[in-house]
Amino acid sequence: MQIFKTITGIRSFVKEARQAGRTVGFVPTMGYFHEGHLTLMRQAKGECDLVVVSIFVNPLQFGPREDFASYPRDFDRDVALARSTGVDAVFAPDTQEMYPEQYYTTVDVEKITDPLCGRSRPGHFRGVTTVVAKLFNIVHPHRAYFGQKDAQQVVVISRLVEDLNMDLTVVTVPIVREPDGLAMSSRNVYLDPADRKAALVLCQSLRAAKEAMASGVREGPRLAGLVRELIAKEPRASLEYVEVLGLPDLIPCINLKGRVLIAVAARFGATRLIDNTILEVEAVSKIQIQT
Amino acid sequence: MQIFKTITGIRSFVKEARQAGRTVGFVPTMGYFHEGHLTLMRQAKGECDLVVVSIFVNPLQFGPREDFASYPRDFDRDVALARSTGVDAVFAPDTQEMYPEQYYTTVDVEKITDPLCGRSRPGHFRGVTTVVAKLFNIVHPHRAYFGQKDAQQVVVISRLVEDLNMDLTVVTVPIVREPDGLAMSSRNVYLDPADRKAALVLCQSLRAAKEAMASGVREGPRLAGLVRELIAKEPRASLEYVEVLGLPDLIPCINLKGRVLIAVAARFGATRLIDNTILEVEAVSKIQIQT
Repeated sequence: MQIFKTITGIRSFVKEARQAGRTVGFVPTMGYFHEGHLTLMRQAKGECDLVVVSIFVNPLQFGPREDFASYPRDFDRDVALARSTGVDAVFAPDTQEMYPEQYYTTVDVEKITDPLCGRSRPGHFRGVTTVVAKLFNIVHPHRAYFGQKDAQQVVVISRLVEDLNMDLTVVTVPIVREPDGLAMSSRNVYLDPADRKAALVLCQSLRAAKEAMASGVREGPRLAGLVRELIAKEPRASLEYVEVLGLPDLIPCINLKGRVLIAVAARFGATRLIDNTILEVEAVSKIQIQT
Repeated sequence: MQIFKTITGIRSFVKEARQAGRTVGFVPTMGYFHEGHLTLMRQAKGECDLVVVSIFVNPLQFGPREDFASYPRDFDRDVALARSTGVDAVFAPDTQEMYPEQYYTTVDVEKITDPLCGRSRPGHFRGVTTVVAKLFNIVHPHRAYFGQKDAQQVVVISRLVEDLNMDLTVVTVPIVREPDGLAMSSRNVYLDPADRKAALVLCQSLRAAKEAMASGVREGPRLAGLVRELIAKEPRASLEYVEVLGLPDLIPCINLKGRVLIAVAARFGATRLIDNTILEVEAVSKIQIQT
């Protein structure tokens, strides 16, 4: 496995591989790998000849009062883990390499960045789409892998790729969970034992919403209300949002139909966690008719 | 020469050429070709194995009260002219192909889009950078050719390419002028004979500024004042701006040094024209010492 710190380095590595007819998979990350990241890498390795992983904690996507400085980092451990999954190259630029002085350009996806994390983290998605556009241009992959944990990010990046006619495929990989159901996140390390336990309310309330839908509930606000109530019962949880939105345009759903995203964000102490689930409403409805 | 209306069409044409090891030159245009466009095409043809020209009047870069609807168009003539210069492919998408429904993404270059045309045409450069990012991703050229006539556009697109790490070279081609000095522009056809004659004040005042500098003037505001005075003497000209700015960052110049852009925009009747010249201040200064 090779490690590149410079844009010219990774670029010529990938160019050579592409010219030899090899397909390139790309997993952009902020590092501090957990099983979710490794799942992305393994799937990329299964589908592409060569896999590049980037590690870059992107300052542009953190707000001024967010956790950029304290975001967990462990480069040596990350490199060892990437190597163990068969990754071919790690691209780990510093901030100066990505944003030199007199850097002036941003990429914006409108509308679908308004709800959910876009509302509570102003400027966040502009930072994400800008760095991802840069990384896609630098690495020039055939396929790029993103986790469903960041549901809105996947929708936004898919739209970015389509709107700007980027010549690559976005692959979404299902959420990887701890054995007790907590969605894996680099930020889980911040949680003290009591918050770690309390954080289960996120996946549990989403599961309850899924069951409510399976038993016939078809109104978005009712499902959102159910999740809200369950989270309210957990005193360590401070709810930021629960939203029930249609996919892929993230428009609020009153009467559920088609693919529906239920997404939730809450704080446990200083730690902000997100989780989500996708419901296929027609499919469930059919099962109901059959029973 | 082949004509493509679809993104998939031009993309597979270029992909095949690149895989065969051929270099691709690209000339993005809004059509209605004049000698300036043809000069870009000829230079591209001289430097690249294969040349693609796009013809797309981009609605996103026109303001609501600008001339999008009346912008001159003549597709058949353009195709014949492109063919005559040896162009290999014309990409001429319709608006729906470039901006389908639910198009949400924009690309912005800040700061250097503030002065000059950015000030008088709010949103113009966002439209330019967005469509150019799309076209670069669609055509995927090795080299892209732009005319120095749109001086700020060249600076902005060079910055876009560098900031977003696009893997291509921006080539700037000098202004092509009519025999009497008027900078070539698709909008020149709007001018009635009296305005056509009056419009010469643009290149004449820029020439006067250049001569003033050659004879020792080193203050930006004095040069700008000279141009302003000369244009004020032409009753058919309505001045929009004269600015003297340092390159490449378009910062106002008080004491001239290095590469300096003098740019001017004025209206003649309803027709808005721009022109500019670049001065190399050190070089001129050396000549003075020698004499």
